[in-house]
Amino acid sequence: MKAAIVGATGIVGQQFIVALSGHPYIEISALAGSTRSAGQKYGDAVRTPAGASQWFCEEPCDKSVKDMTVQLSTDLRAEDYDVIFTGLEADTARELEPLYAKTTPVISTASAFRYEPDVPLLVPGVNPEHAKLLDIQRKNRGWKGYITPNPNCTTIGLAITLKPLHDAFGVRTVLMTSMQALSGAGRSGGVLGMDILDNVVPYIPKEEQKVQRETQKILGSLNAEGIEDAPFAVSCTCTRVNVQDGHTESVFVALDKPASVDDVKAAIEAFNKAVRTDLPSAPQNMITVTEDPFHPQPKWDRMTEGGMSTVVGRIREDHALPNGVKYVLLSHNTKMGAAKGCVLTAEMLAREGYIKR
Amino acid sequence: MKAAIVGATGIVGQQFIVALSGHPYIEISALAGSTRSAGQKYGDAVRTPAGASQWFCEEPCDKSVKDMTVQLSTDLRAEDYDVIFTGLEADTARELEPLYAKTTPVISTASAFRYEPDVPLLVPGVNPEHAKLLDIQRKNRGWKGYITPNPNCTTIGLAITLKPLHDAFGVRTVLMTSMQALSGAGRSGGVLGMDILDNVVPYIPKEEQKVQRETQKILGSLNAEGIEDAPFAVSCTCTRVNVQDGHTESVFVALDKPASVDDVKAAIEAFNKAVRTDLPSAPQNMITVTEDPFHPQPKWDRMTEGGMSTVVGRIREDHALPNGVKYVLLSHNTKMGAAKGCVLTAEMLAREGYIKR
Amino acid sequence: MKAAIVGATGIVGQQFIVALSGHPYIEISALAGSTRSAGQKYGDAVRTPAGASQWFCEEPCDKSVKDMTVQLSTDLRAEDYDVIFTGLEADTARELEPLYAKTTPVISTASAFRYEPDVPLLVPGVNPEHAKLLDIQRKNRGWKGYITPNPNCTTIGLAITLKPLHDAFGVRTVLMTSMQALSGAGRSGGVLGMDILDNVVPYIPKEEQKVQRETQKILGSLNAEGIEDAPFAVSCTCTRVNVQDGHTESVFVALDKPASVDDVKAAIEAFNKAVRTDLPSAPQNMITVTEDPFHPQPKWDRMTEGGMSTVVGRIREDHALPNGVKYVLLSHNTKMGAAKGCVLTAEMLAREGYIKR
Amino acid sequence: MKAAIVGATGIVGQQFIVALSGHPYIEISALAGSTRSAGQKYGDAVRTPAGASQWFCEEPCDKSVKDMTVQLSTDLRAEDYDVIFTGLEADTARELEPLYAKTTPVISTASAFRYEPDVPLLVPGVNPEHAKLLDIQRKNRGWKGYITPNPNCTTIGLAITLKPLHDAFGVRTVLMTSMQALSGAGRSGGVLGMDILDNVVPYIPKEEQKVQRETQKILGSLNAEGIEDAPFAVSCTCTRVNVQDGHTESVFVALDKPASVDDVKAAIEAFNKAVRTDLPSAPQNMITVTEDPFHPQPKWDRMTEGGMSTVVGRIREDHALPNGVKYVLLSHNTKMGAAKGCVLTAEMLAREGYIKR
Repeated sequence: MKAAIVGATGIVGQQFIVALSGHPYIEISALAGSTRSAGQKYGDAVRTPAGASQWFCEEPCDKSVKDMTVQLSTDLRAEDYDVIFTGLEADTARELEPLYAKTTPVISTASAFRYEPDVPLLVPGVNPEHAKLLDIQRKNRGWKGYITPNPNCTTIGLAITLKPLHDAFGVRTVLMTSMQALSGAGRSGGVLGMDILDNVVPYIPKEEQKVQRETQKILGSLNAEGIEDAPFAVSCTCTRVNVQDGHTESVFVALDKPASVDDVKAAIEAFNKAVRTDLPSAPQNMITVTEDPFHPQPKWDRMTEGGMSTVVGRIREDHALPNGVKYVLLSHNTKMGAAKGCVLTAEMLAREGYIKR
Repeated sequence: MKAAIVGATGIVGQQFIVALSGHPYIEISALAGSTRSAGQKYGDAVRTPAGASQWFCEEPCDKSVKDMTVQLSTDLRAEDYDVIFTGLEADTARELEPLYAKTTPVISTASAFRYEPDVPLLVPGVNPEHAKLLDIQRKNRGWKGYITPNPNCTTIGLAITLKPLHDAFGVRTVLMTSMQALSGAGRSGGVLGMDILDNVVPYIPKEEQKVQRETQKILGSLNAEGIEDAPFAVSCTCTRVNVQDGHTESVFVALDKPASVDDVKAAIEAFNKAVRTDLPSAPQNMITVTEDPFHPQPKWDRMTEGGMSTVVGRIREDHALPNGVKYVLLSHNTKMGAAKGCVLTAEMLAREGYIKR
Repeated sequence: MKAAIVGATGIVGQQFIVALSGHPYIEISALAGSTRSAGQKYGDAVRTPAGASQWFCEEPCDKSVKDMTVQLSTDLRAEDYDVIFTGLEADTARELEPLYAKTTPVISTASAFRYEPDVPLLVPGVNPEHAKLLDIQRKNRGWKGYITPNPNCTTIGLAITLKPLHDAFGVRTVLMTSMQALSGAGRSGGVLGMDILDNVVPYIPKEEQKVQRETQKILGSLNAEGIEDAPFAVSCTCTRVNVQDGHTESVFVALDKPASVDDVKAAIEAFNKAVRTDLPSAPQNMITVTEDPFHPQPKWDRMTEGGMSTVVGRIREDHALPNGVKYVLLSHNTKMGAAKGCVLTAEMLAREGYIKR
Repeated sequence: MKAAIVGATGIVGQQFIVALSGHPYIEISALAGSTRSAGQKYGDAVRTPAGASQWFCEEPCDKSVKDMTVQLSTDLRAEDYDVIFTGLEADTARELEPLYAKTTPVISTASAFRYEPDVPLLVPGVNPEHAKLLDIQRKNRGWKGYITPNPNCTTIGLAITLKPLHDAFGVRTVLMTSMQALSGAGRSGGVLGMDILDNVVPYIPKEEQKVQRETQKILGSLNAEGIEDAPFAVSCTCTRVNVQDGHTESVFVALDKPASVDDVKAAIEAFNKAVRTDLPSAPQNMITVTEDPFHPQPKWDRMTEGGMSTVVGRIREDHALPNGVKYVLLSHNTKMGAAKGCVLTAEMLAREGYIKR
């Protein structure tokens, strides 16, 4: 499967490169970027003229990738690739992704198309049946390809943990407070060190609306007209804390039916078993439950199953809400919450025939 | 007014010294500590033999205090003082405070007696009428003095912000997630740097129960038998973040009656006006409302009115809860939440005749 | 004394406002900025349209300053002011400061003119006699005013601590490693949180050359032709650490004559006594010596004497260098090292008749 | 090769377990600890009764290790093992290690025996010839085994980088300032979060003397009587910064012969080539030179070659010292600087016949 990565020199692009390094059947066949990097070898494009590295992943960049020449993203011949991964800002995504989608599946981390009615927010293991919306999208837009964006990095862990609760007990109300990592803000709009040292910033513009809308869409049901939002209310307060990677979320949920702590754990276990784990990037367990009351902690738990498993701890009954439960979750915002999650989606779409191999 | 400080060399004791420095009518007349420091000059007792400072307040220690000799806390002649401030661990408090209270009012940061039925949790401006419970306590126990502990540092800001909401609209349900500062853990049980760097710890033992019980008690109503807990449910998840001072709390509240954002602000303003501000340590505004969506932030806002005002921001309606509102609060855990809050309580008790001047 | 502040909305400009707040004889008479802020009330100019505060000092901004209208810096009528403080980037400083200097003394934090032969780097208490170079500068350039920049924030503490050593024992070689605070990088080129969390960055572009050249100039001797650099070698490695304010420097010095630890302390004490402390912003002691082996620490010691005293600890003999001594110093980079240091310079120049009152 | 790990539940013991996980020929055959953990399964011993994990390595603990029963360290039958790794505090090491050494080689991270004349400080690749001192030690003490401690974690990177300089140009003087990671302080004496947040601590008790003495010993020459210290002076200031792992050191060196930057790099390259890399834990390059001026950075570079390569950057000539060079190094204090370095030493000693296989 030949893949192109667009926005390849940015931090999300770098994470796509890492996520595809050594992939059993997806090959990085093209790297594309803006005029600033086009025409350069990738290894040079992620280094300043003064020699300072602009490669921001812990994992090194493969030598073979460093030697590839970066193409101009507006010149990319999309039809030459089986799938295009884009790590663009929303504005550029809105412009470029439809051009690529005429011929080729586009899997994106950008928010540009997330809220359009014929665009699904796929989370393999949670709503694979929403992939059928891509058929409608193709028909609507006259495209051979399609656009399917990853959900927001704060949404994805929340949606994953609500899935077994919703299936087993019915979710009625969700109240969530996030403590989000610095890497979630990206680099261009990144938080300054002096603004986050010894601090918490209790607001992340647009984040809360994204979480609220996307959670309802992901857990909604697909019918002939499109996705009907899940019929529960989501309310949240999103904050930034001084953590490198890994979003922590404190969640309170009111359910339709009562559920004990053991009931919740059993529902999670059943969910884990039901999810197919035959994709190369899929975790063995979508959700890892920890019994250690001091966990999940971002520093220690974010890399559980390579950052692809959502870690849940502190599961308790909540007596303030009707049929209430509460818990803390941790989701790796740059792994399952971004590039690697998109690769997992690509694998699932390939399995289901939406990407040809 | 002659005050003794017990546990004087500990961090809370140090904060008492700072809170009383230059006080218009409370004089530090005695410092007491364990056998480790008794008999030493205070200035020497807060320094290791190798010369390393063990003084942990930003404000310097007064020269006159440094020259005072530390007494042994078990030898303190309580009757010689008008008030005793204690900054002890719960175990020691349980043992020593009743001895002092035989003759003298004891104002404490320890949790030892907080949950006894004849012990109020006074927050000047919120529940001054609970002081009458001290008469019952004296009678019950045959003491001339009494014990009145400060609430837990995470509770106090929550209770203050709920007060105007409860009075104006009726509080039905409270769901809170805290992001607590390092100084809240004290030094002996303090969090290691390597455990909190690049991390969030989603559990603080015993903290959540304290917040839940104390909030209901503070906002409860005093009747002949004692305090009847406020009739609303409180549920919370308490976490530790890498912040020096200042507890941030994300709060969701269901009310009995609907309230717009402006209604909430008006209720807060009315509350601020109704509170007497004629005590030396009292803030001009119990609650400071910020319109800046990125605030309150612990680094920038914790010292509002010397750390005695609770800062509230991000007030929004919440559509997930019935008559819901949500907001973020910041409370300085070692100022209003500890020693300086106790000094404010002492001032209020002196005004009301519970401490003689 | 009427002062204008240019670059008033930037972080250095804000620090000038704080440094002049309540000043006994310097009045903030004008605030100037770029087209982005010109024409706005200052209070609005340091707030985004969405209401987010862009005021980055711990001290609040005076109400009277908030109500002043920001002028366009290119329109400023310099002749209307007795002194102009500028907190500009080097490029803009190079352009604007000479225009102002035609009529008015300019005291600047920019590096633009630091290395010109007729421009002194004044540190009150260290080289007040270099002020005479301003006469030469005026004659050379045909200006009524002049430009006198503050030294680099890393240089100033080093120069202050070398002064008594050089006077008493002769400095031969200086080897310094700095651990610099985040605020030293400013905001526009500020370090991202994710780049400094759990990290040290061992390079600050251009910083080392600045320290080496400026230290020699500050401690040089003024003769008829200008300043002759101090005849010792300075070598340094400048690093960035995760600290808000306060540059820590580890210094090794070879002297011409042997000096014991007590000799060094005596030389510092003599220096402190010799320096005039009759200026409003001057510290009582240019250098504060700490005997606590764990200090100076930026968090606890940077605000010594309002950030105007350089704190020195860990003074030891060094047997690796000829007549060697070593110590650790701490200097507040945004107080003595920037705006407040410029205000001190203004006070000294006023006393010496270089600014009319 | 059968290995016992003593102090197995401590953080160094855990690092030994990680360092030996999957080792080609060293097998963990016994775990020993104090009375607190003896008799428990290892998996239980690194967990509190309340279920909180006390396992502090990023790498997980092997299931087979978790199931091993911890022995009492005073009961360990040393003769049953081919090598004993100890991660004890100095006091306990002084008592226990000689008992084990009667029959068995002991490789230790403790400082207890480092300064005894018949005890080498082995750094494979730097001074393998010092292993011969073990023969003298055996004879002196009448032991079948011996004690060989790892050098201090701050020393080891310095000694490695000085080795090629000393061989090629002769080292005359070394001046070093360290910026050390939190994990270097261990857990029992660990730095509190509130003491290091927004801070640098400019003193680490005993550290500077260790570095000075050990560097001279490691690079000294072995003769019939023992090791003659290297004939150069080492002076240092050791500080603690808010970094998890990885000690950064700013080094200034005066050489006997002049050396350009290229000469230094060539000497390092020659050294890398000369060192045997045929041991399982050995890095391909003892020293990794980075040309990026912003590196080495602990966050990004500490795991170079699994934490076993010392990363050197910012190599410059230094004109303040005779034949001066300066550079910044980074060494992983809990990998090469502790347990994994001991394992490398064991491999080298096995190759040289000092441990039987």
